[in-house]
Amino acid sequence: MRTPRAIAELSDAELEGLQADLSRELELQAANRLSLDLTRGKPAPDQLELSAGLDDAIAGNYIASDGTDSRNYGALTGLREARELGAEIMEADPEDIICWGNSSLQLMHTCVDLALNHGLWGDGRRWSRDANPKVLTPVPGYDRHFTICEAAGIEMINVPMTDTGPDMDAARRAVEDPSVKGIWCVPKYSNPSGCIYSPERVEELARLPADAAADDFVILWDNAYAVHDFEFPRAPLASLLDLARRHGTGEHVIMFASTSKITYPSAGLAFLAADAAVRKAVESRLGTASIGPDKVNQLRHARFLGGRVEAHMAGHAALVKPKFELVERKLREGLAGLGIADWTTPAGGYFVSLDTRPGLAKNVGDLAAKAGLTITKPGATFPYGRDPEDANLRIAPTFASLADLAVAMDVLVVCVKLAAISREIDHRSGTAGA
Amino acid sequence: MRTPRAIAELSDAELEGLQADLSRELELQAANRLSLDLTRGKPAPDQLELSAGLDDAIAGNYIASDGTDSRNYGALTGLREARELGAEIMEADPEDIICWGNSSLQLMHTCVDLALNHGLWGDGRRWSRDANPKVLTPVPGYDRHFTICEAAGIEMINVPMTDTGPDMDAARRAVEDPSVKGIWCVPKYSNPSGCIYSPERVEELARLPADAAADDFVILWDNAYAVHDFEFPRAPLASLLDLARRHGTGEHVIMFASTSKITYPSAGLAFLAADAAVRKAVESRLGTASIGPDKVNQLRHARFLGGRVEAHMAGHAALVKPKFELVERKLREGLAGLGIADWTTPAGGYFVSLDTRPGLAKNVGDLAAKAGLTITKPGATFPYGRDPEDANLRIAPTFASLADLAVAMDVLVVCVKLAAISREIDHRSGTAGA
Repeated sequence: MRTPRAIAELSDAELEGLQADLSRELELQAANRLSLDLTRGKPAPDQLELSAGLDDAIAGNYIASDGTDSRNYGALTGLREARELGAEIMEADPEDIICWGNSSLQLMHTCVDLALNHGLWGDGRRWSRDANPKVLTPVPGYDRHFTICEAAGIEMINVPMTDTGPDMDAARRAVEDPSVKGIWCVPKYSNPSGCIYSPERVEELARLPADAAADDFVILWDNAYAVHDFEFPRAPLASLLDLARRHGTGEHVIMFASTSKITYPSAGLAFLAADAAVRKAVESRLGTASIGPDKVNQLRHARFLGGRVEAHMAGHAALVKPKFELVERKLREGLAGLGIADWTTPAGGYFVSLDTRPGLAKNVGDLAAKAGLTITKPGATFPYGRDPEDANLRIAPTFASLADLAVAMDVLVVCVKLAAISREIDHRSGTAGA
Repeated sequence: MRTPRAIAELSDAELEGLQADLSRELELQAANRLSLDLTRGKPAPDQLELSAGLDDAIAGNYIASDGTDSRNYGALTGLREARELGAEIMEADPEDIICWGNSSLQLMHTCVDLALNHGLWGDGRRWSRDANPKVLTPVPGYDRHFTICEAAGIEMINVPMTDTGPDMDAARRAVEDPSVKGIWCVPKYSNPSGCIYSPERVEELARLPADAAADDFVILWDNAYAVHDFEFPRAPLASLLDLARRHGTGEHVIMFASTSKITYPSAGLAFLAADAAVRKAVESRLGTASIGPDKVNQLRHARFLGGRVEAHMAGHAALVKPKFELVERKLREGLAGLGIADWTTPAGGYFVSLDTRPGLAKNVGDLAAKAGLTITKPGATFPYGRDPEDANLRIAPTFASLADLAVAMDVLVVCVKLAAISREIDHRSGTAGA
């Protein structure tokens, strides 16, 4: 294989030749009427089959270990064994856990609404005391977090992500503003970069509420990929709640997790872990709107997964890891050394983050769409859909088959190259935008 | 059996003799260390067994009729077959239905929050434009409705219930106030009276939003007992949504139902039916906080119950009706003709409403508690827990066994008689409070 040469070093003629070749290649792909989708982090059907045993887990015995009939009302904060399952996933104390509903996102929405309008601590503190409450969003990040804030009228302030977590100098500067009330974090296999927050970063985050000017600062810790490793035993993540308690900020931390990508998206369990005051506020709110969670599904999950989460996740890893390896190989073979893109190589989770040279991402999205490949809308990894660099693309490789993924990645690589070359040609001819 | 004589007609000596007898009877019961509970409308374990087939309904086939894999993300408003099940229960069009979550109460909470803070019609109308929004609460009513309003800071205005629905003259007078924004209704086997709203009353309700001064008036139609009859085919209930559309008020109506007392409380499905504008607002809100409902449970329910809801409910009726008959017999044998209490005789649902002479209900609750019988806290059937007459008691007979229910009703009858007699004695001796 030839050593690839950076696009910038190619002659004008070489560039034009390449542009023509790549355009033809993309036209050929378009003629195939592809319908490829790398947009959302969805498990593939073979991953769903790993949880087939879930449906047999009840086997006529609906009584929980403490004698609760899972089929009737009650147990607002979840069955004991479901909270223990949450503890196994979150590496937290079952006593700190609430297991409620099928969606950690919904628990996050509830907590943000509580923080904003009703308070999380049973006192007068609530974000709505501030005319313009703001929350820090490490970017690139998860669009659903942004949607919750936008719907609630909470302004988002970007903080750069590093490969060990948020840029904490930037975060500490930002929280000097008393209207900055919180920060969103996906601490393990972060969406979309796939990085794991380092122990130092988690420790700094645990101290952040003490650094903050606001007395109602909250760390929203969305540990969606807590056990979604490709190798086991799982990669470690420092416990934010433990560290926060050590630093006296325990009341300013809420950790979330779910079984959405362990068993079934939408048909699993959601968890939060927090200090007693916060749990009390959450419980009171849940009790206003609901008589209790689906405890039959809790029992089903606890019996199927309890004590064997990592063994179960190894089954996912066997199916998912080859897809990430394929993405890495396609990107390396197609883009390495060209000086037009960088990407992450996560050891778990659901996403690869691809950064093109600035100003290319939207064009890549358009080119891909024409060729029948849907990628996460460029900009979606930033609040308000605005990527200031127009550079970040999120690749979600899990749902496609390996064969489809290979084609999709070939198309994506062609699109990135074509966008970069077209830009370079425009640049050299002086027609590129500012 | 002797013809009972009204308490008021007894001589002082007779009263004192009765008081002594009843006190002794209650002491004997207390010595038995009873632990009886007639508080909440919970199905008994034998009712739960009727849904044992639910757990076998998936049988390895997770694919919905339209090809949707119920195990993965999507279908925010519910699977088609789940909405069809909702239609069978609600006697509404599947197109008008959203099936989401396990709790109709939560859907109600979401709709009240939307009406208050975000609007239900995609325009500027929202209750929070009013400094003091109010909602009508037919009384006696359901405490969970009151809790939702109280938590949201919505004032409640009582409207008397009749045995054909709310007193509509009172309702129409009340809605002349533009700050009156809605009304709660449990139209079939109303909680707690057990009455069914008459066709005339439903028609008047359908016109009420047009009568209202508020342009954002909403009828919250909690049809929790739509199919919970003791005889089949089910007793008819006029369709509020159909009538409202005929009267041009379709956008001011939201109907709710659930399978909580059809299959499993907390582990069933919840539904709402409404006009397109309202559904759009609800869908947008659900989509902010959740990626979708538990569709595996939707599929399970649709396969188990679809097309045979009434046959299934006949199984419940066979277990529940004898309990209501026992309650009626115990009340009749113990209290008829004494002039101290009236009660309802519902043909379905979960509750019997017992009205004592004014000023007795709390005392009955206290006497019962001392004898080991827990009844729904007197006052709970009124907003803020305040029954102005201190007269209403809600009896929930379903959860107890027939044997326990018989003892519980004996105790309750003794408590009502003792409270009335003590009151009469106090009254005659001039020591009764104002």
